[in-house]
Amino acid sequence: MINQLYNTDTIVAVATAPGVGAIAVIRLSGPEAINITNSVFKGKDLAKQTSHSIHFGTIRDEDKVLDEVLVSLFVAPHSYTKENVVEISCHGSDFIVQQIVKLLLKKGARLANAGEFTKRAFLNGQFDLAQAEAVADLISSDSALSHEVAMKQMRGGFSQEIKRLRAELVHFASMIELELDFGEEDVEFADRDQLRSLILNIQKIIRELLKSFELGNVIKNGVPTVIVGKPNAGKSTLLNKLLNEEKAIVSDVPGTTRDFIEDEINIEGITFRFIDTAGLRETTDKVEAIGVERTMQKLSQSSLIIYLFDITEVTATEVQAELDRLNPQKLPLVAVANKIDRASDDKVKAFESIEGLVTISAAEGANLDELKQALVEKVNLGKLNTQSQTIVTNLRHVDSLNKTYAALDDVLNGLGLGMSGDLVAADIRRALYSLGEITGEITTDDLLDNIFTKFCIGK
Amino acid sequence: MINQLYNTDTIVAVATAPGVGAIAVIRLSGPEAINITNSVFKGKDLAKQTSHSIHFGTIRDEDKVLDEVLVSLFVAPHSYTKENVVEISCHGSDFIVQQIVKLLLKKGARLANAGEFTKRAFLNGQFDLAQAEAVADLISSDSALSHEVAMKQMRGGFSQEIKRLRAELVHFASMIELELDFGEEDVEFADRDQLRSLILNIQKIIRELLKSFELGNVIKNGVPTVIVGKPNAGKSTLLNKLLNEEKAIVSDVPGTTRDFIEDEINIEGITFRFIDTAGLRETTDKVEAIGVERTMQKLSQSSLIIYLFDITEVTATEVQAELDRLNPQKLPLVAVANKIDRASDDKVKAFESIEGLVTISAAEGANLDELKQALVEKVNLGKLNTQSQTIVTNLRHVDSLNKTYAALDDVLNGLGLGMSGDLVAADIRRALYSLGEITGEITTDDLLDNIFTKFCIGK
Repeated sequence: MINQLYNTDTIVAVATAPGVGAIAVIRLSGPEAINITNSVFKGKDLAKQTSHSIHFGTIRDEDKVLDEVLVSLFVAPHSYTKENVVEISCHGSDFIVQQIVKLLLKKGARLANAGEFTKRAFLNGQFDLAQAEAVADLISSDSALSHEVAMKQMRGGFSQEIKRLRAELVHFASMIELELDFGEEDVEFADRDQLRSLILNIQKIIRELLKSFELGNVIKNGVPTVIVGKPNAGKSTLLNKLLNEEKAIVSDVPGTTRDFIEDEINIEGITFRFIDTAGLRETTDKVEAIGVERTMQKLSQSSLIIYLFDITEVTATEVQAELDRLNPQKLPLVAVANKIDRASDDKVKAFESIEGLVTISAAEGANLDELKQALVEKVNLGKLNTQSQTIVTNLRHVDSLNKTYAALDDVLNGLGLGMSGDLVAADIRRALYSLGEITGEITTDDLLDNIFTKFCIGK
Repeated sequence: MINQLYNTDTIVAVATAPGVGAIAVIRLSGPEAINITNSVFKGKDLAKQTSHSIHFGTIRDEDKVLDEVLVSLFVAPHSYTKENVVEISCHGSDFIVQQIVKLLLKKGARLANAGEFTKRAFLNGQFDLAQAEAVADLISSDSALSHEVAMKQMRGGFSQEIKRLRAELVHFASMIELELDFGEEDVEFADRDQLRSLILNIQKIIRELLKSFELGNVIKNGVPTVIVGKPNAGKSTLLNKLLNEEKAIVSDVPGTTRDFIEDEINIEGITFRFIDTAGLRETTDKVEAIGVERTMQKLSQSSLIIYLFDITEVTATEVQAELDRLNPQKLPLVAVANKIDRASDDKVKAFESIEGLVTISAAEGANLDELKQALVEKVNLGKLNTQSQTIVTNLRHVDSLNKTYAALDDVLNGLGLGMSGDLVAADIRRALYSLGEITGEITTDDLLDNIFTKFCIGK
C-alpha cells in the first residue's frame, strides 16, 4: 500500500487559515523536512533534537532574519504523515509567511498539493481512506451533529463496520477459491447455505447504511427547509427573527470567529438551511405574490416545510384544505399559526384540529422555542443520539455500497442457479473490490486524486 | 515592573487567523494553563511533562470527543509570556475551535483581551515596550522594508539606542541630586560643561531619530504617490500596467495567500500607495477633465508626484512650464513622457532639457523598469540599506522624543541661567520620564491600554 514515490520529496504548505492572525503555521513533511528547516534555522542543531520537541530560534535567509519562530519536530514515523514533519510557528503576517515558504522552496522543498499531507498519511498507513475523508468533513463541520459524525468516522467507526463485513466475505472467497484448486474433485469447502445467509446479512447491513445516508446528508448539508404561506402571513418577520437569534448565538463567544451563514439556523445541533428566501429577507413580504407553480417548485426542493398563516385572516377549514392541496405527498410539514397576539383564545381554539399546529407571534417572538422543537422533531434524528448507529455521509461511499449490493445480488443469483465456484468467486471478488474502495484497501490514482484535491492546501 | 495582578488568572484565545485552514491554534497563558488543559485532555498527564514538549491526544467534554489535537507545553518562565503557556493545535474548523474555547472557559480560563499575551510578556519582562509594539508592526508588515524595520525594533535595536541615552542622563541626574544632599556646601559633582555637551549630543541623536520618522512613516504606511497629467496622457493605462504587474508578482507563490492590495505597488521593498485613483482605474481617463484646484489638492496629499504627458501632443517648453506651475514647492517629482512608440527620435531628443525625464510607452509596457527605478531613487531610502540606521516608525515614539527634546532644552536654559541643582534635576527627570515611556521603563495603565488594544486578540 505504501507508495515509495511519496517518500522521495519534501513538501511544504501553510497550514493555518490565510489572513492576519497572531501566529501562522508552516508545515513540512518528507525525508528532508528537518534538514531543510535546519539549513535556515539558527538557535540549535535541529538534527540532534528528539521527536515532539519545540525549539525557539530565528529563520534566516543568509544573514537576514525573516522571523523569530518556534519549530516543532516530529521524527518519522511519529508524525501525522509518518514522515519527518516540521511545523514552523511564525508571526501571522502573510508577508512573512510568504518569505519563509519561498526560502524553504529555495532550499529544496516543493509546495504541497491540496490534501497531500493527509494523502501521505493514508498511503503510509496512518489511517484508512474513509478516515482520511472524515478529516476534510471535520474541518468543514459547522454543527454539533456534523462534527459528531465526522469525528466518529475519523476515529474509525465506519471503517470498522466495513472491514468486518469484508473480512467475513474474504473468508468465503478463499474457501471457494480453494475448491477451484481441487479442480475436478467436486469438493465444497464453502458451505453454500452459510454463504447465502452471510450475504443476506451483509445486504441487510448495507441497506441500513444506505438508509442512514438520508440522515447523513441532512447532517452534513443541513435540512433544506422552506417557509410558505400567503403574502402578509409574516414569513419575512419569522425568518428574520430566527436568523437574528442565530446570529446572536453564533457570536456568543467573542474572540472566536465562527462565520454566521446567511439563511441557516442551528437547533440542537441540526442545521436547517432555508431555501429560496431571496425575497423574504426584506422586512415585509408584501411583494411576494407567489404563484402556485412557484410554490410547488420550492416545495420540491425542500425536505421540511413550514406552512405559515395569519390566524386572524383564515378559518381552520381553509387552512386544512390548503395543507392538503400543498402537500399531497405528506412531506414533513409544520403548520404554524402566526399573530396569535391579535387573536382571541376562542379563535385559537378553533384551530385545534390542525395536526401538530404551533401557534406563535413572529412579531413578538412568542413561542419560537416551541416552533424550533417542532422542527427538530419532524427531522427525527432521535436515533442518532444513541451514538451507536453508523451514519453514511459521503456520496462516494453510497456509490460503493450500491455496487457491493449489486455484486452480492449476483452472488445470490449464481448460488441459486448452482453456478460453478469460479463464477461465484468472481462476483464475490467484485463485492470485495467495491467494499475495499471505501476504506482504501483498493485504490486507484484517479480515486485518490478525486478525494484529496477536494482538501485544502496544508492539510 | 511585574504587575502581580497578571499572574492571577489564565487567559485563552485563538491565535491563528479566522476561517478554514488545515489547523487552528488555541493559546492559553497563566498559572492554570496546564491544569485547565489537563482537565479536558486525554492521552497523558500533562502536569508531568517537560517544557517545550508536544503531546497527542483528544480534547473531551465529559465523554464527548471534541477533537484529536496536539498540545504544546511551555512551562513558566520558559514561554512567550513567561507564564505557563499551552498551545492546542486542533483541526481548523471554526465550529471545533469555538467548542474547545467554550470548554476551556467553562474550566476556568477567561477570554484574553486584544494584545494581552504580549502585554503579559512585557509586564513579565520578556521585552520592553518598543519591542512589544514592534510585534504588532511585524504582524502587519507587508513589504520587505516594513518587515525589516519592525524586525529590527522587535529584536531591540531601537530600544538599545534609547536606553543608552537614558543611562547617560541618569548618571548626571544622580550626580546633581547628590549635590542636593550636601545642601549649603556648594559642591558640584556634576560637571556642568560635560552635562551641557552630553545634552547637546542627545539632542542631536533625537533630531536624527525624529528625522528618520519621515522615512519610517513611508516604510510603514507606503509613499503616497499621485499620477497627474492631462486627459489622454495615458494615466489609467500606466496605473493599470503597474498594478497588474504587481498582481502577478504577489501571486507568484501558489499556496500562500498574501493579499493583493489595490492601488499599491511594491518596488525593491518600498510600498508606493497611489492616492485618489478612483477615476483612473477605468481603461480610459477621457472622462477626467481635472481642474486646477482638484490637481493641487491631490498634490498636497502626496509625497511623490508622477507627472505624465503625451510626448506627441506637447513641446518641452510647455511641459517645463506646467512642471513649474504644478510643483513650486519642489516635491519629489518624476516627469514621464508617454507614447514614445509614436514619437520620432528627434522628438524625444527635444525633451532632453526636462530634468530626470523618463520616457516610456505605457501601452507597450516599454521602459517601465526605468520608471520604477526613478521612483525608488526619488524616495531615496539608500541609507536604510546599510542596516545600521535606527528608524522611528511609531507616532507615539515621536511624541515622546519631542517631549524629551523640549525637556532637554529646559535643562540647557537652566544651566545657562545658572539655575539651582534641584530645578535642573527636575528638568532632567522630565526628559528621563519621556524617554522611559518609549521603552516602558515608565508606564501608566492608560498608556498600556492604548498600545495593546490595537493588537489582535490572540497575540
